[in-house]
Amino acid sequence: MQIRSEETRIHILGAASHLFSESGYDAASVAEICTAAGVSKGAFYYHFPSKQALFLALLETWLQGLDAAFEKIQQEAVSVPQALQAMAQMAGNVLQSSDTSLPIILEFWMQAYRDPAIWEASIAPYRRYQNYFSSMLQRGIQEGTLHPVDPQIAARVTVSLGMGLLLQALFDTESTPWEKVVRQCVDLLLNGLSRRNA
Amino acid sequence: MQIRSEETRIHILGAASHLFSESGYDAASVAEICTAAGVSKGAFYYHFPSKQALFLALLETWLQGLDAAFEKIQQEAVSVPQALQAMAQMAGNVLQSSDTSLPIILEFWMQAYRDPAIWEASIAPYRRYQNYFSSMLQRGIQEGTLHPVDPQIAARVTVSLGMGLLLQALFDTESTPWEKVVRQCVDLLLNGLSRRNA
Repeated sequence: MQIRSEETRIHILGAASHLFSESGYDAASVAEICTAAGVSKGAFYYHFPSKQALFLALLETWLQGLDAAFEKIQQEAVSVPQALQAMAQMAGNVLQSSDTSLPIILEFWMQAYRDPAIWEASIAPYRRYQNYFSSMLQRGIQEGTLHPVDPQIAARVTVSLGMGLLLQALFDTESTPWEKVVRQCVDLLLNGLSRRNA
Repeated sequence: MQIRSEETRIHILGAASHLFSESGYDAASVAEICTAAGVSKGAFYYHFPSKQALFLALLETWLQGLDAAFEKIQQEAVSVPQALQAMAQMAGNVLQSSDTSLPIILEFWMQAYRDPAIWEASIAPYRRYQNYFSSMLQRGIQEGTLHPVDPQIAARVTVSLGMGLLLQALFDTESTPWEKVVRQCVDLLLNGLSRRNA
């Protein structure tokens, strides 16, 4: 019964991810999500008190995947610049694949701007990534591979680069080799961060 | 009569800018815009064939303002790094001021993603800025103030930084000194772009 219930939850999340991406958050109704997932409204509301709660659960799922990938990269990389390059490689792959979750992230940012409840849930992970990169870049300074920059500002630039490339990939999907572009962008950023006379 | 007509157009643009920012593009109706602008629907449709056309006219107005400011900076700066720093200063001022047009830009990006007609009108200025910065950075390489980087990639990083900081300023308005942050971010980017032994 427990397994069945978890399966239902996953069906709902999958159907919602597809519908949000296709029609947008506002246009996709709970009824449509239920039909696409093959579940009753009762089953839907058993798992999610509202469409908004479902939206936040989707975001949480994507962020957990990203966190796990980042964690693995950090463990395998021998230095902070190498970890950043591996993250660029991964990010480039995601942008290249035209992942259907990408447009929903933009939709989410939009919703977040208008809704204080979503805003709180949205600003939290953004601040977390800001702190994450700040700590990581601080370690790079300590290990001697990075200039003694202000880690907060360097994290700001890194997060901005990520957000900006994500937005561009959403719009300019036709001919850009994102895998190569993201790698080159991070290399260019590193040329400013890496110590010249190490 | 010509002047009167231009005034009406400006009233509609002002009211729409305010309403789009307040309620969002979808929620703000033509009727509401007419009421706020104090014009009849007839007058509205004389100036704009649709709400979408009005939206595009608003974007055009903002971009013209940005272009004029960039042009002035380029004329006054003695080098490309100096021009970039002056642009950072200007961008920081805009973000600091919590300009009400900022949220509408985000809304516009969102609309652009879903609507091919808006997409075309949206991708054009983005490509224009990509080319603008590419030419500018190319000049910096020629004048010897910048590393011989790939100007396309350097422009990509610059545009990404701008888009990323804009998004962050939309969300994180409470305590961040944007004027200082944008300046520091561009300085950090320049440390990667500026020639070390010039």
